Amino acid sequence: MIEEKKISMAVIRRLPRYFRYLSDLIKLDIKRISSKELSERMHITASQIRQDLNCFGGFGQQGYGYNVEYLYDEISKILGTNKRFSCIIVGAGNMGNALANYENFSKRGFDIVGIFDVNKEKIGTMINNIKVMHMDTLPEFVKAQRVDIAMLTVPNNKVNEVATQVTDLGIKGIWNFSPTDLRLGDDIIVENVHLSDSLMVLGYRLKESREGKNQK
Amino acid sequence: MIEEKKISMAVIRRLPRYFRYLSDLIKLDIKRISSKELSERMHITASQIRQDLNCFGGFGQQGYGYNVEYLYDEISKILGTNKRFSCIIVGAGNMGNALANYENFSKRGFDIVGIFDVNKEKIGTMINNIKVMHMDTLPEFVKAQRVDIAMLTVPNNKVNEVATQVTDLGIKGIWNFSPTDLRLGDDIIVENVHLSDSLMVLGYRLKESREGKNQK
Repeated sequence: MIEEKKISMAVIRRLPRYFRYLSDLIKLDIKRISSKELSERMHITASQIRQDLNCFGGFGQQGYGYNVEYLYDEISKILGTNKRFSCIIVGAGNMGNALANYENFSKRGFDIVGIFDVNKEKIGTMINNIKVMHMDTLPEFVKAQRVDIAMLTVPNNKVNEVATQVTDLGIKGIWNFSPTDLRLGDDIIVENVHLSDSLMVLGYRLKESREGKNQK
Repeated sequence: MIEEKKISMAVIRRLPRYFRYLSDLIKLDIKRISSKELSERMHITASQIRQDLNCFGGFGQQGYGYNVEYLYDEISKILGTNKRFSCIIVGAGNMGNALANYENFSKRGFDIVGIFDVNKEKIGTMINNIKVMHMDTLPEFVKAQRVDIAMLTVPNNKVNEVATQVTDLGIKGIWNFSPTDLRLGDDIIVENVHLSDSLMVLGYRLKESREGKNQK
């Protein structure tokens, strides 16, 4: 049995990536893989892979490599991919629409159960078969059904207010798309998506590449 | 003078975050900050901060801390925030719309100069004052003006084809929003935005929190 508590957040943050690659390998009917091969596919060093996978009992065997299905199952268990999370989207703008239409989320256990906004023109419209409701009806909605995660795609100057609103209603998970890093109670779990950060890294790597010193 | 070559990608990937926090500090008119205070704000350990900032000459002084503006300037220089990148969006769906309307990008040096799609109903429409053009006109467009980055928000089963198309036209930077990890030439820089990965980490942390063993 694996000791989950010992796994650091740095390793946890890499697990979804292993999960993706391993599920691709399963689709390709590949039964086992060496850390070297996995390293080449994933652009992570083989030693990093060995270190990461050792954390949760993924012991490769000399001359055999890793058992793909075993690793996949272990990572799934750690990540809790068999769990289902009930999610709402707050903000029915373009990003809210994009999220509501993302098919992958439901496959991964994240069900969008409601979309909320304050714009009267949007209330009552349907996005991917989900009705857009007014924020005023959120307390009632949350009383009637469990909501685990609020995905916040609201303007930056509204995000603190909205985050307080939803967490006051007992929602514990926040997926924040605004540039603001939210400060909420210790029992609230926040993941931020900072698109600009990723773009700045791309800009940096392009600049370095032009100057002839790009690194992978 | 700083030795940029020695900075690892792991540090580089944290720089946009320092950049954001330091620019907030400047807005708050804070002149200097200790690694401990910065650590509390950023939820990064103080030793990690000292290690990171040492990489590019950000030497804090005992009893004084870091000079906020100096650090900000150095990080800006490394990231190349004074550079401007000319970008196109391929895929005028919800995500493409969301990106075209992101105000932060232009502030950070990324200008959206064109949006491309193959859907006839979208061609000729305007998104945030940018005309949506047909993919067939992309070769001509790229001849007429430099394009550094293609932001790909196309369906997953089209992304390889589109990535090949744009890189064949000489575009060197790809910002990929599909779940597919692209394999392109060595001279092509790809940054992937895997939204599902971030959501899976949120799910993991919620699960751990419920089981009473959440870590920050």
